[in-house]
Amino acid sequence: MTQEQDIRPIDSLRLAEPLASQFRFLLEADSLKSVIRGSRIADGSRRENTAEHSWHIALFALVLASHAAERIDVLRVVSMLLIHDLVEIDCGDTPLFDAAGTATQAAREAAAARRLFGLLPTKQATEMLALWQEFEAATSADARFAKAIDRLQPILLNHAVGGGTWADYDVDEARERALTCRIADGSPALWAAAEAAINDAVSRGWLKPARGA
Amino acid sequence: MTQEQDIRPIDSLRLAEPLASQFRFLLEADSLKSVIRGSRIADGSRRENTAEHSWHIALFALVLASHAAERIDVLRVVSMLLIHDLVEIDCGDTPLFDAAGTATQAAREAAAARRLFGLLPTKQATEMLALWQEFEAATSADARFAKAIDRLQPILLNHAVGGGTWADYDVDEARERALTCRIADGSPALWAAAEAAINDAVSRGWLKPARGA
Repeated sequence: MTQEQDIRPIDSLRLAEPLASQFRFLLEADSLKSVIRGSRIADGSRRENTAEHSWHIALFALVLASHAAERIDVLRVVSMLLIHDLVEIDCGDTPLFDAAGTATQAAREAAAARRLFGLLPTKQATEMLALWQEFEAATSADARFAKAIDRLQPILLNHAVGGGTWADYDVDEARERALTCRIADGSPALWAAAEAAINDAVSRGWLKPARGA
Repeated sequence: MTQEQDIRPIDSLRLAEPLASQFRFLLEADSLKSVIRGSRIADGSRRENTAEHSWHIALFALVLASHAAERIDVLRVVSMLLIHDLVEIDCGDTPLFDAAGTATQAAREAAAARRLFGLLPTKQATEMLALWQEFEAATSADARFAKAIDRLQPILLNHAVGGGTWADYDVDEARERALTCRIADGSPALWAAAEAAINDAVSRGWLKPARGA
């Protein structure tokens, strides 16, 4: 590939900073629309991409904010949910049930976060990277609620389509609970609802009962 | 269709309010992932759906907030951008260049907003509908900036793909400017950047010069 082909049309506009860097970041972010997740959309017709998933969970956070266990800053929660999956542009989606993928996920995603947020002007890059790290570490009330939302939405989609990734990855009820029970850290009310969906899925045969149960 | 088939799996969980209504709304909102817009994604490979568009513009708002002409509340702006296109679930996307569609758009979308936000618990439905109406009327600083962002993003996508909807709808430079110049109401800086992209598109032959020019 020649250097010429590497220049995006936006770079030829020679915009002043900080807009030039911000537009470059926002156009790079567009690639998240091409990252495909395991989950299906609610009508079951196709798999969800990560950009539309990010929109959906941001909407979840707006609508469900009052169920948070602790006092939260909704703008910080929504911001985390809008940016936390951008690393998948470099790393792809790693399903919760993919043990081999999740083992190396943290290091790969940290490098992707540095590259992607590094496209922004320095101060904004630092802020976005810190917000991303806060989400990953789940060390704040905002991050715990954001993570709860991110874990809740795929349960509702699997329930809506009658199995989804539970069937694809041969997941049983015990494993599903182990992977999602920290929803309770962000919101006991949402965890109770998630458990109702999980129990219903087991009773309908969409999710296997725990081995030995 | 029998009444039985009309019941979504989520309704069978018999969750308590307000969660039952909130989950019903959030699963109904999922249909926005199946509404296809005119714009292509930045690599030109396919058309954008409205859910991923909504994510993209919410991210634009987070990153570009400092360019707002007036003092804005970023959470209100992002909330407007996350919800303002939900009406397309009932009405479909109406491209800016579709004169016949835009003539009846307001009434059709107002009815859709009442139906969709009406799925939420009463207080939340009222708040969301008011926020949607504020965006539509563009009577506040938050709404003016949100509208500017919503108009800016398709210009950058058309520029990225070398024509896009400008070519599809045979738009010329004068019409494009007339339809987008109110970006300046929300942000003179973003309008200057949009104009740079429009001028560059004309010079490259991606957007026709104004008739008679």
